[in-house]
Amino acid sequence: VDALFAAVRASGAEVDAEPADQPWGLRDFRLRDPDGYYLRVTHDDEPTAPAPTPEPPYTAVIFTSLRTDTDHPGYAETAAEMERLAAAQPGYLGIESAKEKLGITVSYWSSAEHALGWKAVAAHELAQQAGRDRWYRQYRVRVATVEREYGL
Amino acid sequence: VDALFAAVRASGAEVDAEPADQPWGLRDFRLRDPDGYYLRVTHDDEPTAPAPTPEPPYTAVIFTSLRTDTDHPGYAETAAEMERLAAAQPGYLGIESAKEKLGITVSYWSSAEHALGWKAVAAHELAQQAGRDRWYRQYRVRVATVEREYGL
Repeated sequence: VDALFAAVRASGAEVDAEPADQPWGLRDFRLRDPDGYYLRVTHDDEPTAPAPTPEPPYTAVIFTSLRTDTDHPGYAETAAEMERLAAAQPGYLGIESAKEKLGITVSYWSSAEHALGWKAVAAHELAQQAGRDRWYRQYRVRVATVEREYGL
Repeated sequence: VDALFAAVRASGAEVDAEPADQPWGLRDFRLRDPDGYYLRVTHDDEPTAPAPTPEPPYTAVIFTSLRTDTDHPGYAETAAEMERLAAAQPGYLGIESAKEKLGITVSYWSSAEHALGWKAVAAHELAQQAGRDRWYRQYRVRVATVEREYGL
């Protein structure tokens, strides 16, 4: 988002609001187009807040991965596409992800059945296969029932 | 590890093995000291593999956080100290963590009681208080029972 904002500003567009983290968990900025309309620009693959999950119980799928060293083409696109596709599945509650050496993605689902449904979606199965064959040196998937939640 | 290795090599020490990811999940290098002993140098705060958890069921504590913008002194030291302290608690099974904009740390415990025991350790309670007061803008703690695990 910030990189895009810098490019947009350099192009001379009329900026209405600089990039900021919004209460709904996305970072965005706002432009005014020549007709006077506001455009809010964001990136839905950049989670900036914990997922807004409901009262437990619900299901968490913890995916911990270690990438292969080679930077395979298609990985980033597929990962982003899978996050979008997951968000459209029944029972989807939210996703959190962070990557350093180790990558951790936690997706939240209304039930274990919903999580299983997502695992079986055809496009996701193809991505899983590519992951096993090329992208990951090692990974663990842990399916868990969240029983308690608290925070700030 | 790599930064330390560069400094050690620059000092002229006899390097026996360059930094490498080991099968047990740590990155380390090896030196030979003047008496001929081998020294293996690693950093236990740099997880490079999924935690070696046993057959489910066991407990996962998913800690998702969003830092405040200010870089408060003491944060990194306390976080590292808490990881060391956690590893010494009864029922500790392992920890995974990654941080981008969002930080995700998942610690694994033999039971929910063991996870609660860690929450109540005095030094950890102090760190939690500092976290609420200064370090985190937002965080969620989710306590979950892992029921299924698979992977590569």
